[in-house]
Amino acid sequence: MVETRELRRFPCYVSPMSDSIKGTNLTWHASEVSAERRREVHGHGGAVLWLTGLSGSGKSTLAHRVERLLLERGVFAYVLDGDNVRHRLNRDLTFSAEDRSENIRRVSEVAKLFQDSGAVVITAFISPYRADRAQARETVGDAFFEVHLDVDVDTCEVRDPKGLYKKARAGEIKNFTGISAPYEAPESPEIKVRTGEEPVEASAAKVLAMLEDRGVIAAG
Amino acid sequence: MVETRELRRFPCYVSPMSDSIKGTNLTWHASEVSAERRREVHGHGGAVLWLTGLSGSGKSTLAHRVERLLLERGVFAYVLDGDNVRHRLNRDLTFSAEDRSENIRRVSEVAKLFQDSGAVVITAFISPYRADRAQARETVGDAFFEVHLDVDVDTCEVRDPKGLYKKARAGEIKNFTGISAPYEAPESPEIKVRTGEEPVEASAAKVLAMLEDRGVIAAG
Repeated sequence: MVETRELRRFPCYVSPMSDSIKGTNLTWHASEVSAERRREVHGHGGAVLWLTGLSGSGKSTLAHRVERLLLERGVFAYVLDGDNVRHRLNRDLTFSAEDRSENIRRVSEVAKLFQDSGAVVITAFISPYRADRAQARETVGDAFFEVHLDVDVDTCEVRDPKGLYKKARAGEIKNFTGISAPYEAPESPEIKVRTGEEPVEASAAKVLAMLEDRGVIAAG
Repeated sequence: MVETRELRRFPCYVSPMSDSIKGTNLTWHASEVSAERRREVHGHGGAVLWLTGLSGSGKSTLAHRVERLLLERGVFAYVLDGDNVRHRLNRDLTFSAEDRSENIRRVSEVAKLFQDSGAVVITAFISPYRADRAQARETVGDAFFEVHLDVDVDTCEVRDPKGLYKKARAGEIKNFTGISAPYEAPESPEIKVRTGEEPVEASAAKVLAMLEDRGVIAAG
Protein backbone atom coordinates (compact mmCIF):
# COMPACT_ATOMS: atom_id res chain seq x y z
CA MET A 1 0.00 0.00 0.00
CA VAL A 2 1.33 3.43 -0.85
CA GLU A 3 1.75 5.47 2.33
CA THR A 4 -0.26 8.66 2.72
CA ARG A 5 2.92 10.63 3.21
CA GLU A 6 4.04 9.30 -0.15
CA LEU A 7 0.81 10.48 -1.73
CA ARG A 8 1.37 13.94 -0.30
CA ARG A 9 4.34 14.35 -2.57
CA PHE A 10 1.95 14.44 -5.48
CA PRO A 11 -0.22 17.47 -6.21
CA CYS A 12 -3.83 16.81 -5.23
CA TYR A 13 -5.18 18.46 -8.28
CA VAL A 14 -3.88 19.11 -11.69
CA SER A 15 -5.22 22.18 -13.42
CA PRO A 16 -7.83 21.64 -16.07
CA MET A 17 -5.99 21.85 -19.33
CA SER A 18 -7.17 22.01 -22.84
CA ASP A 19 -4.55 21.13 -25.40
CA SER A 20 -5.39 20.68 -29.01
CA ILE A 21 -4.27 17.40 -30.47
CA LYS A 22 -2.12 17.89 -33.52
CA GLY A 23 -3.89 17.45 -36.81
CA THR A 24 -7.36 17.04 -35.31
CA ASN A 25 -10.21 19.21 -34.07
CA LEU A 26 -10.23 17.21 -30.84
CA THR A 27 -9.08 18.48 -27.49
CA TRP A 28 -7.83 16.49 -24.54
CA HIS A 29 -9.47 17.43 -21.27
CA ALA A 30 -7.55 16.36 -18.21
CA SER A 31 -9.43 15.58 -15.05
CA GLU A 32 -9.45 18.11 -12.22
CA VAL A 33 -8.66 15.15 -9.99
CA SER A 34 -5.36 13.27 -9.97
CA ALA A 35 -5.10 9.50 -9.68
CA GLU A 36 -3.43 10.04 -6.31
CA ARG A 37 -6.35 12.08 -5.03
CA ARG A 38 -8.75 9.36 -6.17
CA ARG A 39 -6.72 6.80 -4.25
CA GLU A 40 -6.84 8.98 -1.13
CA VAL A 41 -10.61 9.41 -1.38
CA HIS A 42 -11.41 5.78 -2.18
CA GLY A 43 -8.74 4.16 -0.02
CA HIS A 44 -7.54 1.94 -2.85
CA GLY A 45 -6.13 2.09 -6.34
CA GLY A 46 -7.64 1.16 -9.66
CA ALA A 47 -6.72 -2.08 -11.40
CA VAL A 48 -7.72 -4.52 -14.11
CA LEU A 49 -7.86 -8.19 -13.18
CA TRP A 50 -7.81 -9.84 -16.59
CA LEU A 51 -9.10 -13.39 -16.20
CA THR A 52 -8.28 -15.81 -19.00
CA GLY A 53 -9.07 -19.51 -19.35
CA LEU A 54 -11.10 -22.05 -21.27
CA SER A 55 -14.88 -22.14 -21.37
CA GLY A 56 -15.97 -23.86 -18.16
CA SER A 57 -12.79 -23.01 -16.26
CA GLY A 58 -14.79 -20.87 -13.85
CA LYS A 59 -14.03 -17.32 -14.95
CA SER A 60 -17.46 -15.82 -14.27
CA THR A 61 -17.77 -17.62 -10.94
CA LEU A 62 -14.35 -16.43 -9.77
CA ALA A 63 -14.94 -12.91 -11.13
CA HIS A 64 -18.21 -12.47 -9.24
CA ARG A 65 -16.76 -13.91 -6.04
CA VAL A 66 -13.77 -11.56 -6.16
CA GLU A 67 -16.12 -8.66 -6.87
CA ARG A 68 -18.23 -9.46 -3.81
CA LEU A 69 -15.24 -9.91 -1.51
CA LEU A 70 -13.79 -6.60 -2.67
CA LEU A 71 -17.09 -4.78 -2.22
CA GLU A 72 -17.42 -6.17 1.30
CA ARG A 73 -14.04 -4.58 2.01
CA GLY A 74 -15.27 -1.25 0.71
CA VAL A 75 -13.43 -1.50 -2.60
CA PHE A 76 -15.22 -0.23 -5.67
CA ALA A 77 -15.29 -3.32 -7.88
CA TYR A 78 -17.11 -4.43 -11.02
CA VAL A 79 -17.20 -7.40 -13.37
CA LEU A 80 -17.07 -7.02 -17.13
CA ASP A 81 -18.34 -10.35 -18.30
CA GLY A 82 -17.74 -11.72 -21.78
CA ASP A 83 -21.28 -12.87 -22.22
CA ASN A 84 -22.87 -9.78 -20.72
CA VAL A 85 -20.79 -7.28 -22.68
CA ARG A 86 -21.49 -9.13 -25.91
CA HIS A 87 -25.23 -8.61 -25.34
CA ARG A 88 -24.88 -4.85 -25.09
CA LEU A 89 -21.82 -2.83 -26.02
CA ASN A 90 -20.49 -5.44 -28.44
CA ARG A 91 -23.73 -6.80 -29.80
CA ASP A 92 -22.69 -5.74 -33.30
CA LEU A 93 -19.77 -8.19 -33.24
CA THR A 94 -19.66 -11.80 -34.44
CA PHE A 95 -17.26 -14.56 -33.39
CA SER A 96 -15.00 -14.18 -36.42
CA ALA A 97 -11.30 -13.78 -35.64
CA GLU A 98 -11.49 -10.08 -36.55
CA ASP A 99 -14.54 -9.42 -34.40
CA ARG A 100 -13.07 -11.40 -31.49
CA SER A 101 -10.11 -9.06 -31.54
CA GLU A 102 -12.40 -6.01 -31.75
CA ASN A 103 -14.37 -7.45 -28.82
CA ILE A 104 -11.20 -7.66 -26.73
CA ARG A 105 -10.06 -4.23 -27.91
CA ARG A 106 -13.27 -2.55 -26.77
CA VAL A 107 -13.32 -4.42 -23.48
CA SER A 108 -9.71 -3.36 -22.87
CA GLU A 109 -10.66 0.25 -23.44
CA VAL A 110 -13.66 0.03 -21.12
CA ALA A 111 -11.55 -1.75 -18.50
CA LYS A 112 -9.02 1.07 -18.80
CA LEU A 113 -11.77 3.64 -18.18
CA PHE A 114 -12.85 1.80 -15.03
CA GLN A 115 -9.25 1.49 -13.83
CA ASP A 116 -8.73 5.18 -14.51
CA SER A 117 -11.83 5.96 -12.45
CA GLY A 118 -10.17 4.17 -9.52
CA ALA A 119 -12.18 0.94 -9.66
CA VAL A 120 -10.93 -2.62 -9.58
CA VAL A 121 -12.48 -4.14 -12.68
CA ILE A 122 -12.54 -7.87 -13.27
CA THR A 123 -12.85 -9.03 -16.87
CA ALA A 124 -14.07 -12.56 -17.55
CA PHE A 125 -13.35 -13.49 -21.16
CA ILE A 126 -11.80 -16.59 -22.67
CA SER A 127 -9.41 -14.21 -24.50
CA PRO A 128 -7.55 -17.12 -26.11
CA TYR A 129 -4.95 -15.16 -28.08
CA ARG A 130 -1.69 -13.93 -26.57
CA ALA A 131 -1.60 -11.00 -28.98
CA ASP A 132 -5.00 -9.74 -27.83
CA ARG A 133 -4.04 -10.03 -24.17
CA ALA A 134 -0.76 -8.26 -24.86
CA GLN A 135 -2.76 -5.49 -26.50
CA ALA A 136 -5.04 -5.27 -23.46
CA ARG A 137 -2.00 -5.06 -21.21
CA GLU A 138 -0.58 -2.26 -23.31
CA THR A 139 -3.89 -0.38 -23.24
CA VAL A 140 -4.24 -0.61 -19.46
CA GLY A 141 -0.61 -0.15 -18.45
CA ASP A 142 0.90 -0.92 -15.05
CA ALA A 143 -2.38 -1.73 -13.31
CA PHE A 144 -2.99 -4.80 -15.51
CA PHE A 145 -2.95 -8.18 -13.76
CA GLU A 146 -3.36 -11.30 -15.87
CA VAL A 147 -5.08 -14.08 -13.95
CA HIS A 148 -4.77 -17.47 -15.63
CA LEU A 149 -7.43 -20.02 -14.71
CA ASP A 150 -5.27 -23.04 -15.38
CA VAL A 151 -7.74 -25.85 -15.95
CA ASP A 152 -7.08 -28.42 -18.67
CA VAL A 153 -9.54 -28.95 -21.47
CA ASP A 154 -10.50 -32.46 -20.29
CA THR A 155 -11.63 -31.15 -16.92
CA CYS A 156 -13.56 -28.32 -18.55
CA GLU A 157 -15.19 -30.73 -20.96
CA VAL A 158 -16.28 -33.03 -18.12
CA ARG A 159 -17.73 -30.04 -16.26
CA ASP A 160 -19.32 -28.52 -19.37
CA PRO A 161 -21.62 -26.27 -17.31
CA LYS A 162 -23.33 -24.77 -20.34
CA GLY A 163 -23.32 -27.90 -22.54
CA LEU A 164 -21.10 -26.10 -25.03
CA TYR A 165 -18.40 -28.76 -25.35
CA LYS A 166 -21.06 -31.28 -26.25
CA LYS A 167 -22.33 -28.97 -28.98
CA ALA A 168 -18.79 -28.29 -30.16
CA ARG A 169 -18.02 -32.03 -30.40
CA ALA A 170 -21.23 -32.46 -32.38
CA GLY A 171 -20.04 -29.75 -34.77
CA GLU A 172 -22.89 -27.45 -33.77
CA ILE A 173 -20.44 -24.74 -32.68
CA LYS A 174 -17.55 -23.86 -34.96
CA ASN A 175 -14.25 -22.39 -33.79
CA PHE A 176 -14.75 -23.51 -30.22
CA THR A 177 -11.72 -22.72 -28.08
CA GLY A 178 -9.94 -25.88 -26.91
CA ILE A 179 -11.76 -28.10 -29.41
CA SER A 180 -11.63 -26.51 -32.83
CA ALA A 181 -9.81 -23.25 -32.08
CA PRO A 182 -6.59 -22.67 -30.15
CA TYR A 183 -6.12 -21.47 -26.59
CA GLU A 184 -2.76 -19.83 -26.13
CA ALA A 185 -1.95 -20.14 -22.42
CA PRO A 186 -0.24 -17.17 -20.78
CA GLU A 187 3.52 -17.49 -20.46
CA SER A 188 3.94 -15.17 -17.48
CA PRO A 189 0.61 -14.26 -15.90
CA GLU A 190 0.70 -12.22 -12.70
CA ILE A 191 -1.11 -15.10 -11.02
CA LYS A 192 -2.23 -18.61 -11.89
CA VAL A 193 -5.17 -20.23 -10.10
CA ARG A 194 -6.20 -23.87 -10.37
CA THR A 195 -9.96 -23.51 -10.24
CA GLY A 196 -10.26 -27.13 -11.36
CA GLU A 197 -8.64 -28.37 -8.16
CA GLU A 198 -9.60 -25.94 -5.43
CA PRO A 199 -12.82 -24.24 -4.31
CA VAL A 200 -13.56 -20.77 -5.65
CA GLU A 201 -12.96 -19.31 -2.17
CA ALA A 202 -9.33 -20.45 -2.29
CA SER A 203 -8.71 -18.97 -5.73
CA ALA A 204 -10.46 -15.73 -4.78
CA ALA A 205 -8.34 -15.42 -1.64
CA LYS A 206 -5.17 -15.73 -3.73
CA VAL A 207 -6.32 -12.98 -6.07
CA LEU A 208 -7.07 -10.65 -3.16
CA ALA A 209 -3.70 -11.43 -1.57
CA MET A 210 -2.01 -10.47 -4.83
CA LEU A 211 -3.89 -7.15 -4.89
CA GLU A 212 -2.67 -6.52 -1.34
CA ASP A 213 0.91 -7.44 -2.27
CA ARG A 214 0.82 -5.12 -5.25
CA GLY A 215 -0.47 -2.25 -3.13
CA VAL A 216 -3.79 -1.90 -4.95
CA ILE A 217 -5.86 -2.54 -1.82
CA ALA A 218 -5.05 -2.34 1.87
CA ALA A 219 -4.34 -5.55 3.80
CA GLY A 220 -7.64 -7.09 4.95
CA MET B 1 -32.09 9.28 -0.16
CA VAL B 2 -33.38 5.77 0.32
CA GLU B 3 -33.44 4.92 4.01
CA THR B 4 -31.34 2.03 5.26
CA ARG B 5 -34.42 0.41 6.70
CA GLU B 6 -35.91 0.51 3.23
CA LEU B 7 -32.80 -1.18 1.84
CA ARG B 8 -33.16 -3.96 4.40
CA ARG B 9 -36.32 -5.08 2.70
CA PHE B 10 -34.20 -6.16 -0.23
CA PRO B 11 -32.05 -9.27 -0.11
CA CYS B 12 -28.39 -8.40 0.22
CA TYR B 13 -27.29 -10.95 -2.26
CA VAL B 14 -28.90 -12.67 -5.14
CA SER B 15 -27.65 -16.13 -5.94
CA PRO B 16 -25.32 -16.49 -8.86
CA MET B 17 -27.43 -17.65 -11.70
CA SER B 18 -26.58 -18.95 -15.09
CA ASP B 19 -29.44 -18.92 -17.53
CA SER B 20 -28.98 -19.67 -21.16
CA ILE B 21 -30.27 -17.02 -23.47
CA LYS B 22 -32.65 -18.43 -25.99
CA GLY B 23 -31.24 -19.09 -29.41
CA THR B 24 -27.66 -18.28 -28.44
CA ASN B 25 -24.68 -19.98 -26.86
CA LEU B 26 -24.37 -17.06 -24.48
CA THR B 27 -25.20 -17.15 -20.80
CA TRP B 28 -26.21 -14.28 -18.57
CA HIS B 29 -24.29 -14.17 -15.31
CA ALA B 30 -25.94 -12.14 -12.60
CA SER B 31 -23.81 -10.41 -10.03
CA GLU B 32 -23.51 -11.90 -6.55
CA VAL B 33 -24.13 -8.37 -5.34
CA SER B 34 -27.43 -6.53 -5.59
CA ALA B 35 -27.72 -2.86 -6.52
CA GLU B 36 -29.07 -2.26 -3.02
CA ARG B 37 -26.00 -3.81 -1.42
CA ARG B 38 -23.76 -1.67 -3.62
CA ARG B 39 -25.65 1.40 -2.44
CA GLU B 40 -25.18 0.38 1.19
CA VAL B 41 -21.45 -0.18 0.74
CA HIS B 42 -20.79 2.98 -1.26
CA GLY B 43 -23.27 5.26 0.49
CA HIS B 44 -24.77 6.46 -2.79
CA GLY B 45 -26.50 5.20 -5.89
CA GLY B 46 -25.32 4.97 -9.46
CA ALA B 47 -26.44 7.50 -12.07
CA VAL B 48 -25.72 8.90 -15.50
CA LEU B 49 -25.55 12.67 -15.83
CA TRP B 50 -25.94 13.13 -19.56
CA LEU B 51 -24.68 16.59 -20.46
CA THR B 52 -25.79 17.99 -23.81
CA GLY B 53 -25.09 21.35 -25.40
CA LEU B 54 -23.29 23.11 -28.23
CA SER B 55 -19.54 23.11 -28.70
CA GLY B 56 -18.21 25.76 -26.33
CA SER B 57 -21.19 25.62 -23.97
CA GLY B 58 -18.92 24.36 -21.19
CA LYS B 59 -19.74 20.64 -21.01
CA SER B 60 -16.24 19.41 -20.20
CA THR B 61 -15.64 22.18 -17.67
CA LEU B 62 -18.93 21.48 -15.88
CA ALA B 63 -18.41 17.71 -16.06
CA HIS B 64 -14.98 17.84 -14.45
CA ARG B 65 -16.15 20.27 -11.78
CA VAL B 66 -19.10 18.06 -10.85
CA GLU B 67 -16.77 15.04 -10.80
CA ARG B 68 -14.41 16.76 -8.38
CA LEU B 69 -17.18 17.97 -6.07
CA LEU B 70 -18.69 14.48 -5.97
CA LEU B 71 -15.32 12.86 -5.24
CA GLU B 72 -14.70 15.31 -2.43
CA ARG B 73 -17.96 14.08 -0.93
CA GLY B 74 -16.79 10.50 -1.19
CA VAL B 75 -18.94 9.70 -4.20
CA PHE B 76 -17.42 7.47 -6.85
CA ALA B 77 -17.60 9.68 -9.95
CA TYR B 78 -16.09 9.67 -13.41
CA VAL B 79 -16.26 11.72 -16.60
CA LEU B 80 -16.73 10.15 -20.00
CA ASP B 81 -15.62 12.90 -22.29
CA GLY B 82 -16.53 13.08 -25.95
CA ASP B 83 -13.10 14.01 -27.07
CA ASN B 84 -11.31 11.53 -24.82
CA VAL B 85 -13.52 8.56 -25.65
CA ARG B 86 -13.13 9.24 -29.34
CA HIS B 87 -9.37 8.85 -28.98
CA ARG B 88 -9.63 5.39 -27.48
CA LEU B 89 -12.75 3.23 -27.45
CA ASN B 90 -14.31 4.94 -30.43
CA ARG B 91 -11.22 5.75 -32.44
CA ASP B 92 -12.57 3.63 -35.32
CA LEU B 93 -15.52 6.02 -35.79
CA THR B 94 -15.79 9.05 -38.07
CA PHE B 95 -18.12 12.05 -37.76
CA SER B 96 -20.65 10.74 -40.28
CA ALA B 97 -24.26 10.66 -39.08
CA GLU B 98 -24.10 6.87 -38.76
CA ASP B 99 -20.85 6.89 -36.82
CA ARG B 100 -22.07 9.72 -34.57
CA SER B 101 -25.00 7.52 -33.60
CA GLU B 102 -22.70 4.55 -33.01
CA ASN B 103 -20.49 6.82 -30.91
CA ILE B 104 -23.44 7.74 -28.71
CA ARG B 105 -24.65 4.12 -28.61
CA ARG B 106 -21.33 2.84 -27.29
CA VAL B 107 -21.01 5.69 -24.81
CA SER B 108 -24.53 4.93 -23.54
CA GLU B 109 -23.58 1.31 -23.00
CA VAL B 110 -20.39 2.23 -21.17
CA ALA B 111 -22.28 4.80 -19.09
CA LYS B 112 -24.78 2.07 -18.21
CA LEU B 113 -21.94 -0.21 -17.06
CA PHE B 114 -20.61 2.56 -14.79
CA GLN B 115 -24.09 3.28 -13.43
CA ASP B 116 -24.62 -0.43 -12.82
CA SER B 117 -21.33 -0.54 -10.91
CA GLY B 118 -22.73 2.13 -8.58
CA ALA B 119 -20.79 5.10 -9.95
CA VAL B 120 -22.08 8.53 -10.91
CA VAL B 121 -20.84 8.94 -14.45
CA ILE B 122 -20.90 12.27 -16.23
CA THR B 123 -20.94 12.21 -20.02
CA ALA B 124 -19.85 15.31 -21.90
CA PHE B 125 -20.90 15.01 -25.54
CA ILE B 126 -22.62 17.48 -27.83
CA SER B 127 -25.14 14.67 -28.57
CA PRO B 128 -27.19 16.94 -30.86
CA TYR B 129 -29.93 14.49 -31.85
CA ARG B 130 -33.02 13.84 -29.74
CA ALA B 131 -33.28 10.30 -31.04
CA ASP B 132 -29.76 9.42 -29.87
CA ARG B 133 -30.38 10.89 -26.42
CA ALA B 134 -33.69 9.06 -26.19
CA GLN B 135 -31.81 5.86 -27.02
CA ALA B 136 -29.26 6.61 -24.31
CA ARG B 137 -32.08 7.19 -21.84
CA GLU B 138 -33.64 3.88 -22.77
CA THR B 139 -30.32 2.07 -22.41
CA VAL B 140 -29.63 3.50 -18.96
CA GLY B 141 -33.14 3.47 -17.52
CA ASP B 142 -34.34 5.32 -14.43
CA ALA B 143 -30.95 6.59 -13.36
CA PHE B 144 -30.58 8.78 -16.47
CA PHE B 145 -30.50 12.53 -15.91
CA GLU B 146 -30.33 14.80 -18.93
CA VAL B 147 -28.49 18.04 -18.21
CA HIS B 148 -28.99 20.70 -20.85
CA LEU B 149 -26.32 23.36 -21.05
CA ASP B 150 -28.57 26.02 -22.47
CA VAL B 151 -26.21 28.47 -24.13
CA ASP B 152 -27.14 30.05 -27.46
CA VAL B 153 -24.96 29.61 -30.48
CA ASP B 154 -23.96 33.31 -30.59
CA THR B 155 -22.53 33.13 -27.09
CA CYS B 156 -20.69 29.90 -27.91
CA GLU B 157 -19.33 31.40 -31.10
CA VAL B 158 -18.03 34.49 -29.29
CA ARG B 159 -16.36 32.24 -26.68
CA ASP B 160 -15.04 29.76 -29.28
CA PRO B 161 -12.51 28.27 -26.81
CA LYS B 162 -11.07 25.86 -29.36
CA GLY B 163 -11.34 28.10 -32.44
CA LEU B 164 -13.75 25.61 -34.01
CA TYR B 165 -16.52 28.08 -34.90
CA LYS B 166 -13.98 30.13 -36.80
CA LYS B 167 -12.94 27.05 -38.76
CA ALA B 168 -16.57 26.08 -39.32
CA ARG B 169 -17.40 29.54 -40.67
CA ALA B 170 -14.40 29.29 -42.98
CA GLY B 171 -15.76 25.98 -44.24
CA GLU B 172 -12.80 24.05 -42.83
CA ILE B 173 -15.10 21.87 -40.70
CA LYS B 174 -18.16 20.32 -42.31
CA ASN B 175 -21.33 19.36 -40.41
CA PHE B 176 -20.51 21.57 -37.45
CA THR B 177 -23.31 21.54 -34.90
CA GLY B 178 -25.04 24.93 -34.66
CA ILE B 179 -23.49 26.21 -37.90
CA SER B 180 -23.91 23.59 -40.61
CA ALA B 181 -25.59 20.77 -38.66
CA PRO B 182 -28.61 20.90 -36.36
CA TYR B 183 -28.72 20.93 -32.57
CA GLU B 184 -32.01 19.57 -31.31
CA ALA B 185 -32.47 21.07 -27.85
CA PRO B 186 -33.97 18.79 -25.17
CA GLU B 187 -37.71 19.25 -24.64
CA SER B 188 -37.80 18.05 -21.04
CA PRO B 189 -34.34 17.63 -19.58
CA GLU B 190 -34.10 16.76 -15.89
CA ILE B 191 -32.19 19.99 -15.41
CA LYS B 192 -31.22 23.02 -17.46
CA VAL B 193 -28.15 25.09 -16.57
CA ARG B 194 -27.19 28.42 -18.10
CA THR B 195 -23.45 28.08 -18.22
CA GLY B 196 -23.30 31.14 -20.47
CA GLU B 197 -24.67 33.37 -17.70
CA GLU B 198 -23.39 31.94 -14.42
CA PRO B 199 -20.06 30.66 -13.12
CA VAL B 200 -19.39 26.93 -13.33
CA GLU B 201 -19.66 26.69 -9.53
CA ALA B 202 -23.30 27.78 -9.68
CA SER B 203 -24.21 25.27 -12.38
CA ALA B 204 -22.34 22.48 -10.60
CA ALA B 205 -24.15 23.25 -7.34
CA LYS B 206 -27.50 22.92 -9.12
CA VAL B 207 -26.52 19.54 -10.55
CA LEU B 208 -25.48 18.27 -7.12
CA ALA B 209 -28.69 19.57 -5.57
CA MET B 210 -30.66 17.62 -8.17
CA LEU B 211 -28.75 14.43 -7.32
CA GLU B 212 -29.63 15.01 -3.67
CA ASP B 213 -33.29 15.63 -4.51
CA ARG B 214 -33.43 12.47 -6.57
CA GLY B 215 -31.92 10.41 -3.76
CA VAL B 216 -28.76 9.45 -5.67
CA ILE B 217 -26.42 11.05 -3.13
CA ALA B 218 -26.89 12.07 0.49
CA ALA B 219 -27.47 15.75 1.33
CA GLY B 220 -24.11 17.51 1.64
